[in-house]
Amino acid sequence: MSSQDPYQGRFAQLVGYRVTAWRDDHAEVGLEIREDHLNRSGVLHGGVMTTLIDSACGYCGCYSPDPARPRQAMTVSLTCHFIGPVRAGDRLTAEARRTGGGRQLFFCDCKVVNQEGRLVAEGSGVFKYRRGSEPERG
Amino acid sequence: MSSQDPYQGRFAQLVGYRVTAWRDDHAEVGLEIREDHLNRSGVLHGGVMTTLIDSACGYCGCYSPDPARPRQAMTVSLTCHFIGPVRAGDRLTAEARRTGGGRQLFFCDCKVVNQEGRLVAEGSGVFKYRRGSEPERG
Amino acid sequence: MSSQDPYQGRFAQLVGYRVTAWRDDHAEVGLEIREDHLNRSGVLHGGVMTTLIDSACGYCGCYSPDPARPRQAMTVSLTCHFIGPVRAGDRLTAEARRTGGGRQLFFCDCKVVNQEGRLVAEGSGVFKYRRGSEPERG
Amino acid sequence: MSSQDPYQGRFAQLVGYRVTAWRDDHAEVGLEIREDHLNRSGVLHGGVMTTLIDSACGYCGCYSPDPARPRQAMTVSLTCHFIGPVRAGDRLTAEARRTGGGRQLFFCDCKVVNQEGRLVAEGSGVFKYRRGSEPERG
Repeated sequence: MSSQDPYQGRFAQLVGYRVTAWRDDHAEVGLEIREDHLNRSGVLHGGVMTTLIDSACGYCGCYSPDPARPRQAMTVSLTCHFIGPVRAGDRLTAEARRTGGGRQLFFCDCKVVNQEGRLVAEGSGVFKYRRGSEPERG
Repeated sequence: MSSQDPYQGRFAQLVGYRVTAWRDDHAEVGLEIREDHLNRSGVLHGGVMTTLIDSACGYCGCYSPDPARPRQAMTVSLTCHFIGPVRAGDRLTAEARRTGGGRQLFFCDCKVVNQEGRLVAEGSGVFKYRRGSEPERG
Repeated sequence: MSSQDPYQGRFAQLVGYRVTAWRDDHAEVGLEIREDHLNRSGVLHGGVMTTLIDSACGYCGCYSPDPARPRQAMTVSLTCHFIGPVRAGDRLTAEARRTGGGRQLFFCDCKVVNQEGRLVAEGSGVFKYRRGSEPERG
Repeated sequence: MSSQDPYQGRFAQLVGYRVTAWRDDHAEVGLEIREDHLNRSGVLHGGVMTTLIDSACGYCGCYSPDPARPRQAMTVSLTCHFIGPVRAGDRLTAEARRTGGGRQLFFCDCKVVNQEGRLVAEGSGVFKYRRGSEPERG
């Protein structure tokens, strides 16, 4: 995405994932696995999976309908479970939803599926709103 | 590192981290934070931190003194806590140690410090040895 | 439950929770919060919540239709998020489901709701089958 | 402990653990494993271990030299790894230390060892100070 895109950062560009759905309390990011996402064993690097989970989770609590007012959060804690194998060429979708929280923190969980809908990883986390990004409700 | 290096994978090259210490039950990886490690908020993407932790943890249980016989493991579960701020230009070191386990699984924890020795993140995880990579002891 | 019950252990009796539903890949445990489940601050001790989550998760991967052949697993890793307040008198239900795994390990996640169906905690974990308790499929 | 003890709660009495050391950013709790701490498999219930870890972690960020002014925190997220076997009669010590945080949240990790000093579990967590319990520094 272009550098003007207020919703996509530099590391997203480096890794190549994209936000494919975003609404209140929900976000999805997608990535097609390439050779440069693999580790020294020739399988998906765990860090690619945690990047997708962290990204989808962060977005899901920060939806803003106004591009001029992006909302932001920082990861406090993230846990990921690696459930199924992933190979180069697979197309992964990480789908996160906000499960609770208030004005300072939010909780979320995330499922990552491949192009056949098979669950390959799960994650959950706690995030902290940056100042000015807190929700109006609470 | 060159593509002949049996210890470094493609995602390590993409992100730019390097193994800086490795011995039985211990591993360190280092990374200087660049602009393309940042997220849309201009701070370190959580996925870079989890990548360093996952990498250091994976290495620490798989030391092999013989480059012709690399040992490998897969992440089962990984948890990361984000403790302090990180900025572009910071030099991070993730130091992991194996804390337990047997022939199938190993446990490890990891601390990430910046160039001043300040703790910026912690993690822990469970890994599973790939077939043929199990420890002789255990 | 009586000491003859092959499905309930001593700590379950001490804490007072009961298995309220159990089938393949799914389990529920219930507990009414009493004064002796509270911590020094007068709110639910985190350990009560993690006990319910650990229990429901452990059961969900070990269903056996034959009481004479109980199946058993050990917790490898457990993560819990504390989402909403709980008070004495609340009736909690922890509902866990197996999300993946094979013959050695299984993954699961768990939601804990109160008597109004409100989510008060979430958890996820990795468990290891005890010898003789592995699933036939895998 | 007596009900006047401002530092010990009801669930601590039920389970039987005691605070054995407490100072700024550090806490230890101890428990001798009894039959009623076991699960239906006759080994330590995971919930006993997570209770010790949650307790030690919660204390370590809330030291107060003045019994008339107890400080309190709530668990936000807790992760535990189960590393070694525990049997009835074992004497466990959970030792937690605060690793970071500010005025709202703190991070901590915890090791649990048996009477021989052998590591049997590790944990880490995020806690939130209750109003009025925030640290002055931070």
